[in-house]
Amino acid sequence: MTQMPETAGRTRAEPPAARDVDLAAQRIAGHIHRTPVLTSSFVDALAGATVFFKCENFQKTGSFKARGASNAVLALADDDARRGVVTHSSGNHGQAIAYAAARRGIEATIVMPENANAAKKAAVRGYGGAIVECAPSASARQATLEAIVAQTGAVAIHPYNDPLVIAGQGTCAAELLAQLDAIDAVIAPVGGGGLISGTGLFISERKPSVVVYGAEPQAADHARRSLRAGRPAEPADAPVTVADGLKAPLGDLTWACVSDHVRDVFAVGEPEIIAAMRLVWERMKIVIEPSCAVPVAAILANRAVFAGQRVGVILTGGNVDLDRLPWAG
Amino acid sequence: MTQMPETAGRTRAEPPAARDVDLAAQRIAGHIHRTPVLTSSFVDALAGATVFFKCENFQKTGSFKARGASNAVLALADDDARRGVVTHSSGNHGQAIAYAAARRGIEATIVMPENANAAKKAAVRGYGGAIVECAPSASARQATLEAIVAQTGAVAIHPYNDPLVIAGQGTCAAELLAQLDAIDAVIAPVGGGGLISGTGLFISERKPSVVVYGAEPQAADHARRSLRAGRPAEPADAPVTVADGLKAPLGDLTWACVSDHVRDVFAVGEPEIIAAMRLVWERMKIVIEPSCAVPVAAILANRAVFAGQRVGVILTGGNVDLDRLPWAG
Repeated sequence: MTQMPETAGRTRAEPPAARDVDLAAQRIAGHIHRTPVLTSSFVDALAGATVFFKCENFQKTGSFKARGASNAVLALADDDARRGVVTHSSGNHGQAIAYAAARRGIEATIVMPENANAAKKAAVRGYGGAIVECAPSASARQATLEAIVAQTGAVAIHPYNDPLVIAGQGTCAAELLAQLDAIDAVIAPVGGGGLISGTGLFISERKPSVVVYGAEPQAADHARRSLRAGRPAEPADAPVTVADGLKAPLGDLTWACVSDHVRDVFAVGEPEIIAAMRLVWERMKIVIEPSCAVPVAAILANRAVFAGQRVGVILTGGNVDLDRLPWAG
Repeated sequence: MTQMPETAGRTRAEPPAARDVDLAAQRIAGHIHRTPVLTSSFVDALAGATVFFKCENFQKTGSFKARGASNAVLALADDDARRGVVTHSSGNHGQAIAYAAARRGIEATIVMPENANAAKKAAVRGYGGAIVECAPSASARQATLEAIVAQTGAVAIHPYNDPLVIAGQGTCAAELLAQLDAIDAVIAPVGGGGLISGTGLFISERKPSVVVYGAEPQAADHARRSLRAGRPAEPADAPVTVADGLKAPLGDLTWACVSDHVRDVFAVGEPEIIAAMRLVWERMKIVIEPSCAVPVAAILANRAVFAGQRVGVILTGGNVDLDRLPWAG
C-alpha cells in the first residue's frame, strides 16, 4: 500500500483531500500533542507582520513527523500491521515510525546508514525501533529496505510520498486554523513536501482565503524550481545545507499537491537560515532545528509580501545536536 | 522606600503577605505574560514524579524578574517616579527594571561593571535603559549607585530585598496554583531569595498543603546553610558556579520569608546542573538558563523526596549566551 520513493511511481495513489485530514486527526488523537502557538513582539517588529509560531518542536518525537507516521501506522489493517513496518531514514521520520509502531504494539525496523549520528540511532532505539545498518548510499538503503520487506513482509512507509502520511501532516494546519481567529497566510518548510502538501490541500479546501507558501534553502530548491518550470525539476545532486531535513526532492504525489495548492516557494541562503534560527532561540527561548528557521528567514527576507499580515509559521521540529550548533566557530 | 542591599538594614520593611501578591498581580497585569506550564513524559519517567514546568523563560525580558521590577516601578508615587529609578545589576534584574521603567515612561539607570557582557549591556539599552559603568567591585557599584541617587533623586530598586519586588515575584506562584488542578510541592531556585520568598509566603497562606522547597548550587548555598543554622550564615566570598543568577546571599527580608515558609533547600553540584540544563533543552526543546536547571537537578537527585508527587518547578529564565554554552568543550 505505502511504498518507498523508488517504487512510488508504480502505485496508483491519489493525493488526499481535507476529509482525509479529518480522519487522520481522529485516528491520531491521543497519540500526538495539540501543540501550542507562540508569538513574539520582537519578531513581529522585525517582520512588520504578526507571526504565529505553531510549535511542532514540542510534538511527540520532537517533530511533526509523528503525525504522518502515526496516521500511516494506525491505518494499517491488522493483518498488515502484524508483519511490522519498515522505513529508511536517518532523521525525524525514523524516530516517528518507531514511536508510532510502539504505540500500536508492532515492530518497526529503521534502515540507517552505518555512519548515521549516534544520537539519532539512540533516539530510534529509545522509541523501541530496531536498526538495520547499511552502506551510506541511496542504492544500499533501498536494497536493504527491499530485502527486509521480502523477508518479513513488513509494510514500507515512505516519509512523504504517501497519502496517509500527507493527510497526517495536514492535521497540523487543521489545528493551527482552529487555534487562530483569522489569518492571511501560512508558510512551511519544503523538503520532500509531505508537510506543505497536507497544509496546502487542507487550507485550499477549507479556508481558501488563506495563502499557502513554502520555503526552501537555496541549495535545495527543488519545489521552487519545479513550480517555476510548471513540472518536476531535475533533483539536485547531494545538496549541501544546514537545513538537513529539507534535502529531498518532491515526489509525484507531493508535486501534485504543491502545484495545485501552493502560491509560491521562497528560497533563502545559509547565513539567513542560521541567523533566523538563532533569533528564535534567543528571543523566543525555544529550540528549533535549522529546517524550520527557513520559513522564518523567508518572512524576514520578504517583508513586502507579508507586510501587515497575520502569518502562521510551522516550526517543524527541535531535534538538533547541541554539540554542533551552526553558529559555533 | 526601596533601597539597595547595603542600606536595607536601615529600613523598617516587613515581609509582604499574600494580599500584597494579589495587589501586585492586578498592578502588573497587561505588562507581563501569563506564562504557560509545560510537561514532559520523559522527565516524569526519569524523576518518578509528575513535573509541571512554569515557563518564566518565556516571560517579558526573558525572566521572572519582570514581575517584581514591574510591581516596584508601577507602585511608585508619581512624585517619586518622576525622578526615575536606578539599580545595579549585570543580569536579569537590570533588564527587568529598564523594561518596567519604559512601560511607565520614566528613566531607568542601570549601574553595570565595566567588564559586563556586551550582550547584556545591549539588552538593557534595547529596553531603553541608560547604563552607567563602574569598576567591577561591590564597593564601586554601591558608591556609583549612591552618587546617582544623590544627584538625580532616582529611586533605587533592590533586586530582591524589597517587599514590592518579593510580592511581584510571588505572582508567579499564584499563577501556577491557578493553572494546576492539584499539586504536592513547588520548587524554585534560590539566589538572593526574592522568588522563593514570594513563592513561599503566598503558598503557605493560600495553599498550606503544598510544600515549598528551594534549590541552590553547592557552591552558593547561603540559604541552605542559613536554614540549617537557624540564622543567616556567613555569605560565601565570590562563589563560582555556572548558575550565575544564584550567587547572591539572602537579605534580611528574604531570610525571614525563607525561614518561615520553606521546608528545605537542596544543593546540587555543577555537573548535575549542566546535565539537567541539557536534558531540558534536548527533551523539552526550550532554552533555559543554568539557574533554573538547579531545581530540576534537585528533583532528579532526590527521587525519594518527590516519588509519585505532582511537583511544580519554576523555570526562572532563558537568557543565555549561545556562544558560551556550558557543555561546549
